[in-house]
Amino acid sequence: MAKFVYFFGGEKTEARADMKEIVGGKGANLAEMCNLGMPVPAGFTIATTACDHFYKNKKKWPKGLKEEIQKNLKKLESVMKTKLGDPNKTLLVSVRSGAAASMPGMMDTVLNLGLNEKVIEGLVKKTGNERFAWDAYRRFIQMFGDVVMNVPHYAFEEILEKKKKAAKAKSDTDLSTQDLKDVVKQYKAIYKKVTKENFPDDAWTQLEKSINAVFISWNNDRAITYRKLNDIKGLIGTAVNIQSMVFGNMGETSGTGVCFSRDPSTGENKFYGEYLMNAQGEDVVAGIRTPLPIATLARQDKKQYEELVGLKDKLEKHYADMQDMEFTIQEGNLYILQTRSGKRTAAAAVKIAVDMVKEKLITKEEALMRIEPEQLDQLLHPMFDAKAEKNAETIAKGLPASPGAATGRIVFNAHDAEVWAERGEKVVLARIETSPEDISGMNAAVGVLTSRGGMTSHAAVVARGMGTCCVAGVGEIKIDYKSKTIKVGKLTLKQGDYLSLNGSTGAVYKGQIKTVEARLSGNFQTLMKWADEARRLNVRTNADTPGDSATAVKFGAEGIGLCRTEHMFFEEDRIISVRKMILADDTGGRVKALKELLPLQRKDFEGIFKAMGNRPVTIRLIDPPLHEFVPQDEASQKKMAKVLKVSPAVVKAKVADLHEFNPMLGHRGCRLGITYPEIIKMQAQAIIEAAINVKKLKIDVHPEIMIPLVGELGELEFCKQIIEKTIKEVFAKKKTKVNYMIGTMIEVPRAALIADEIAKEAEFFSFGTNDLTQMTCGFSRDDAGKFLKEYVEKGIFEKDPFQVLDQEGVGQLVKMGIQKGRSTRKNLKVGICGEHGGEPSSVAFCHRAGMSYVSCSPFRVPIARLAAAQAAIAEKQANRKMKKK
Amino acid sequence: MAKFVYFFGGEKTEARADMKEIVGGKGANLAEMCNLGMPVPAGFTIATTACDHFYKNKKKWPKGLKEEIQKNLKKLESVMKTKLGDPNKTLLVSVRSGAAASMPGMMDTVLNLGLNEKVIEGLVKKTGNERFAWDAYRRFIQMFGDVVMNVPHYAFEEILEKKKKAAKAKSDTDLSTQDLKDVVKQYKAIYKKVTKENFPDDAWTQLEKSINAVFISWNNDRAITYRKLNDIKGLIGTAVNIQSMVFGNMGETSGTGVCFSRDPSTGENKFYGEYLMNAQGEDVVAGIRTPLPIATLARQDKKQYEELVGLKDKLEKHYADMQDMEFTIQEGNLYILQTRSGKRTAAAAVKIAVDMVKEKLITKEEALMRIEPEQLDQLLHPMFDAKAEKNAETIAKGLPASPGAATGRIVFNAHDAEVWAERGEKVVLARIETSPEDISGMNAAVGVLTSRGGMTSHAAVVARGMGTCCVAGVGEIKIDYKSKTIKVGKLTLKQGDYLSLNGSTGAVYKGQIKTVEARLSGNFQTLMKWADEARRLNVRTNADTPGDSATAVKFGAEGIGLCRTEHMFFEEDRIISVRKMILADDTGGRVKALKELLPLQRKDFEGIFKAMGNRPVTIRLIDPPLHEFVPQDEASQKKMAKVLKVSPAVVKAKVADLHEFNPMLGHRGCRLGITYPEIIKMQAQAIIEAAINVKKLKIDVHPEIMIPLVGELGELEFCKQIIEKTIKEVFAKKKTKVNYMIGTMIEVPRAALIADEIAKEAEFFSFGTNDLTQMTCGFSRDDAGKFLKEYVEKGIFEKDPFQVLDQEGVGQLVKMGIQKGRSTRKNLKVGICGEHGGEPSSVAFCHRAGMSYVSCSPFRVPIARLAAAQAAIAEKQANRKMKKK
Repeated sequence: MAKFVYFFGGEKTEARADMKEIVGGKGANLAEMCNLGMPVPAGFTIATTACDHFYKNKKKWPKGLKEEIQKNLKKLESVMKTKLGDPNKTLLVSVRSGAAASMPGMMDTVLNLGLNEKVIEGLVKKTGNERFAWDAYRRFIQMFGDVVMNVPHYAFEEILEKKKKAAKAKSDTDLSTQDLKDVVKQYKAIYKKVTKENFPDDAWTQLEKSINAVFISWNNDRAITYRKLNDIKGLIGTAVNIQSMVFGNMGETSGTGVCFSRDPSTGENKFYGEYLMNAQGEDVVAGIRTPLPIATLARQDKKQYEELVGLKDKLEKHYADMQDMEFTIQEGNLYILQTRSGKRTAAAAVKIAVDMVKEKLITKEEALMRIEPEQLDQLLHPMFDAKAEKNAETIAKGLPASPGAATGRIVFNAHDAEVWAERGEKVVLARIETSPEDISGMNAAVGVLTSRGGMTSHAAVVARGMGTCCVAGVGEIKIDYKSKTIKVGKLTLKQGDYLSLNGSTGAVYKGQIKTVEARLSGNFQTLMKWADEARRLNVRTNADTPGDSATAVKFGAEGIGLCRTEHMFFEEDRIISVRKMILADDTGGRVKALKELLPLQRKDFEGIFKAMGNRPVTIRLIDPPLHEFVPQDEASQKKMAKVLKVSPAVVKAKVADLHEFNPMLGHRGCRLGITYPEIIKMQAQAIIEAAINVKKLKIDVHPEIMIPLVGELGELEFCKQIIEKTIKEVFAKKKTKVNYMIGTMIEVPRAALIADEIAKEAEFFSFGTNDLTQMTCGFSRDDAGKFLKEYVEKGIFEKDPFQVLDQEGVGQLVKMGIQKGRSTRKNLKVGICGEHGGEPSSVAFCHRAGMSYVSCSPFRVPIARLAAAQAAIAEKQANRKMKKK
Repeated sequence: MAKFVYFFGGEKTEARADMKEIVGGKGANLAEMCNLGMPVPAGFTIATTACDHFYKNKKKWPKGLKEEIQKNLKKLESVMKTKLGDPNKTLLVSVRSGAAASMPGMMDTVLNLGLNEKVIEGLVKKTGNERFAWDAYRRFIQMFGDVVMNVPHYAFEEILEKKKKAAKAKSDTDLSTQDLKDVVKQYKAIYKKVTKENFPDDAWTQLEKSINAVFISWNNDRAITYRKLNDIKGLIGTAVNIQSMVFGNMGETSGTGVCFSRDPSTGENKFYGEYLMNAQGEDVVAGIRTPLPIATLARQDKKQYEELVGLKDKLEKHYADMQDMEFTIQEGNLYILQTRSGKRTAAAAVKIAVDMVKEKLITKEEALMRIEPEQLDQLLHPMFDAKAEKNAETIAKGLPASPGAATGRIVFNAHDAEVWAERGEKVVLARIETSPEDISGMNAAVGVLTSRGGMTSHAAVVARGMGTCCVAGVGEIKIDYKSKTIKVGKLTLKQGDYLSLNGSTGAVYKGQIKTVEARLSGNFQTLMKWADEARRLNVRTNADTPGDSATAVKFGAEGIGLCRTEHMFFEEDRIISVRKMILADDTGGRVKALKELLPLQRKDFEGIFKAMGNRPVTIRLIDPPLHEFVPQDEASQKKMAKVLKVSPAVVKAKVADLHEFNPMLGHRGCRLGITYPEIIKMQAQAIIEAAINVKKLKIDVHPEIMIPLVGELGELEFCKQIIEKTIKEVFAKKKTKVNYMIGTMIEVPRAALIADEIAKEAEFFSFGTNDLTQMTCGFSRDDAGKFLKEYVEKGIFEKDPFQVLDQEGVGQLVKMGIQKGRSTRKNLKVGICGEHGGEPSSVAFCHRAGMSYVSCSPFRVPIARLAAAQAAIAEKQANRKMKKK
């Protein structure tokens, strides 16, 4: 005859960790702990096969199930030395679902099963806690009525609410024992009214009905939808776990606590936790009584403490990870209720992983796989003091656009930011949105706040590049430049008021909050070394200045994947020349202005080449539309006209002429170089002359010139020809040569579609996944904030595709581009330089797609290094599995 | 021994039409005419194999070639009864290249070979035309010197220019015989100076050197580049054609003319042409003497005339097409110099094709393949009187945005256009660019002129839809709304001045030009009937009003492929409600405004359903971003605030809030429906209620509801669910049902990439290739005018991808979308509703890609019908060829 029930705890546990299919995930876990010799409250699991039979046979139990359950119940009573329904030595049980796959909260649970008024009497005697007993009973009736008998939930809620009102109780805990007794009475009345039955006092009736309710919950709407959404297929039903309940509030020899096998905040290998005697789990969490540190237990009850330490050692060793455990002592008997991998801070995660390798508990590979790459970000930026942040007043919430914490005084424009910062103030720059003109101000500020724009808006991208904290797109706040105020609801903040930003959560706080500086530990360096050994992908950085480049090298960057030349154009000494160039009436005028820019750009490149040493540097030629460089408002136009010695009308007309409806799809990228070849000629000259100058310092320079926004081979040919001609001229003039490459960004969908053509002329590809995402999905990253948030909330997109690469859509084009590109040029170097280059799941995609490198902002380089290592290890593991099969 | 020379003319022609590989294209054509018995001036062709040998053997002739040439030269002299170098009965020959593939103008030609001073004397005696003889000699020396001996071209030009200056001659023809004699002397001197040789008098030397020059020109830079660009491969060399020259100016029994086998302007089957006696071909063209109509020849020389008629009948029958022929009579002998298919007007093309089917000269399929679909456009729009247009003053040139001709008085805004038109004025509406607010004005105008925007700018798209003439993007003109003037260079036009536009060429003229109305002939209808029999693709129309729908049905539309609901929103009775909806603070306010719109939209749809009868109607739900509906300038905002009874600040703030950086990639399409479900709910209700109302009139309505800008299945699911719920409610309320479909546009690249997913919910696909092109190529159609023109000029793009579907890039996504869509839903209905649906090569692509239908503006429906027929026939022909193989 088929076996339907598996006992766990006591002397013999019948299931094993690998029997999930039969006893479900929870059943298997309980069995595993029992097999490890943990003192788990005993119980038994009804197999999924019983549920299967139930559905296949008009909701009837298979033959023999009842007898098996009764037999196991007897065994349970004997192990626990209690008896279901016995007021003197009462056994209470929980009835819980548990399928082979985790479906948290989707199916039903009944707790405190076994209670009736007689049992309560006994319970009160034992615990001396009358209120607890009646509250448990009230909850049991409500849960059983709702879950098992379909008594409407609100019927119970109504009774409770009325009682609270009558008793002037704010919360449930304010109700007296008498109140609860009244509630139980009314609960029973409504139960009878709805079900036409009395509430069952008989424990077996309670149990039988509860088991059926769990079986039935396998096919409730929520559970079916959850399985569909999560693509859970092929399961035959749920198991049912019937486990004895234990209580920590049964007097002074009872207690309960939560503990960690190591310190979850520092990672130190030190037993850590809190407990309370004569209390329930809720009491520890609720904060009504102050729990004691676990070390106190050593003094209070050495034996219990030592037993607990022994158990935690055993569990940590078994699971080879830091454990978060719940325990209860019931009348001097210690029980482990649950154990799981403990949540930890980034610093702790790194320390624990490295320590465990040293302790030979785990391998280096396992250590690397343990760390959430995204978590490392915490280690690289200043953070708020946790307690101080908790007590601060949140006034709004925006997008966590650039991580870290910032506290400073509010200013409203770049100029003020610079002036205030120079006199030693910490400032937060508040803008409706930022533009390239704000960069110096953003650099001077400790934090940036914008009321518009998404995760890849200008503010977000630039701030991340700088490592400056930024909260973007805070729609609730109104920033008014004229009055220099921020309004949120009824609150008005003025210039100079203090404001704090958490760039990792998007929270905006009023006033100052204490911040804690970042420090990189030796363990961090060790872990990174291991990551570098494991990964195949190279990791480069997106950097536009020698300063950023140096930061990135410090964080382990192996080259520059994207150096945006136009950011340099905004600096005070050159913006005038840039504007002269744009305003020029003809090629001659432009060439003249470009001559002024040449030495400045050359100097920029020299600085970057020096900072990067022998590492390759990919320089993107001018990309943004020219109107980004000219002022839009009348006052600034007048000022500019004066400097340039033309009439304001000329400036105004030119600016109007440069206006575009959709600049993202307009006259930019290589299109500028095709209309104004003299611009890219100057840039090529500056790059190569700089390379030659730096080569003289015995640095092995590797400039890689990158042409943006190519969508057709002809564009690349046209630009490449100009660049190569220029380079030849420089070589001839300087009588020396340097190695260089000419490649292109793949950021227009068409470029990916015809990548086999493009690769005829491109020596390397760099996927600009920001623009590629914009065009493939049709989302302007400056505007999509308005609806993308809603999309993610409504579940239309799982993730913001500007943050996490859309592998299904954009990813198809990336893979196609690589495959087609390499069909023409076998060893084509391929990288990514969009924001996704520093996002772990996207880095893993880049690894699988066969890219040569990823490139990201300096502060994300360590994250990318770890993510790349994890991708390589995951691949290795998958290969090993394949081989085994 | 290999044969290298092939004779043609006289009694025996040695080559045939199918020997292109050996005698080249020209040689084969000449042979074919000879084989037909045409009196072609005799000659011979040196085979391509000789050229091959020449290159493979250090530029030496193969053995026996010299002898073969001499033998054939003798034969030629005998056939022509003349002799090379003989002053009394002189033979002059031309030496021309001619490879198997056409390479026009890429290789060298020498004319008048055989001349020297003695021969000239004889020639003068015969023609009595001394000046002609010396001019011929001068040209020969220049051509031979340049082409054969590499005497720099400019050396000859310099001599000629100096002489002209000295003689005060404006053009070459003003030089006297003595002047020409002087030139010849100086030419010979410079020839000697450069080549260190005397100019050869010996005819054989002239011939030998010329043949070598032609061989060598096969591998000149131009020819190599041309072959590379045009992908001409596998050819071994050029043939050389040596043909006797004939002259129409050898006295009164000589003459020359050009004639057509039918009237090229009406298509009438009537011999048509012009000629001059004692004249050269140039004289007929130059217009110095007035040529006589060919009919006059019947009176002047009946025999010659009848011979010519006989020849043209034979040629037309042989080529089964109207022929354009050049003939020369030399001393009473008639020669045909060239015949080719004649150029013709659209009307003539249609008449000739239909007539020839009736005459059993060609099949219906051939008739259909003969007509350039684009040409039909001429028949559908008013045109300028050709002579009047020729004499008009062109002041600027823009893009030929919507075909036809328009003459009217200039107005500068939609309001004036309407007012002036109402009082009976024909007006041309001049705008910097148009917006949806201008539509009523565009409708009232006979023509639209814009200074900005490309072929798919708002003005262009709307004008084409209306069939209104439009010239767009005329960058040279400055339109000033304030002063109501147009400035072009120094010219200023004021409001009320007359202006004329040719929307088929992009020309802008000052003043009035006489226009000719379009008329659709019976032949046109016949041809269209044949096209309908031949095509597989259905042809629908893009129409937004009952009027447009009726026009399209008249032109043969089989349904509506795109009805843009938002165009209706701009009409005066509803724009207020639309703005109320946009300005509403909450869903309640929006619902209230939408209630006002519902009956109006329902009425719109009823009108369209009635106009379309039983044909399917695809209605696209709201697509443009909401800011298109609100006024941007302060004055209009104030006005709007007053109407809506809110403060101007409220309007201003809302408008500012709606601003987007890249509206094309912003909050539009289905994204609006997801944020404001109540809008699409109202539209679905209006559509279905209208369908039910029209069904009551015994019309079999087929509404197809189309959701725009879908890029992810979730978007479609969300909208579809709202629509279906609404429809169910309408059905329940009205107690009746109608058939309907719900589908989507594929216009975001991502939608094509995941079309298999999208097809799970979409019952049909319609490719919105305007947007798909924008996003795939990264070109904003409103801005790309600035650089796309340059791209086409620089050859980076062959065609503007907004006019002609980019099959290489965008086409890949279209094919992928269809294939993936049908992998999920086998019989998925697929159409195209972008501007490309009316462009012949794009229609052919749609046929090959397996689409179900194309949809285009009403006036392009006949073009699409013909193009679809041609695509089907081409496929059939290719299949037949395949079968034969």
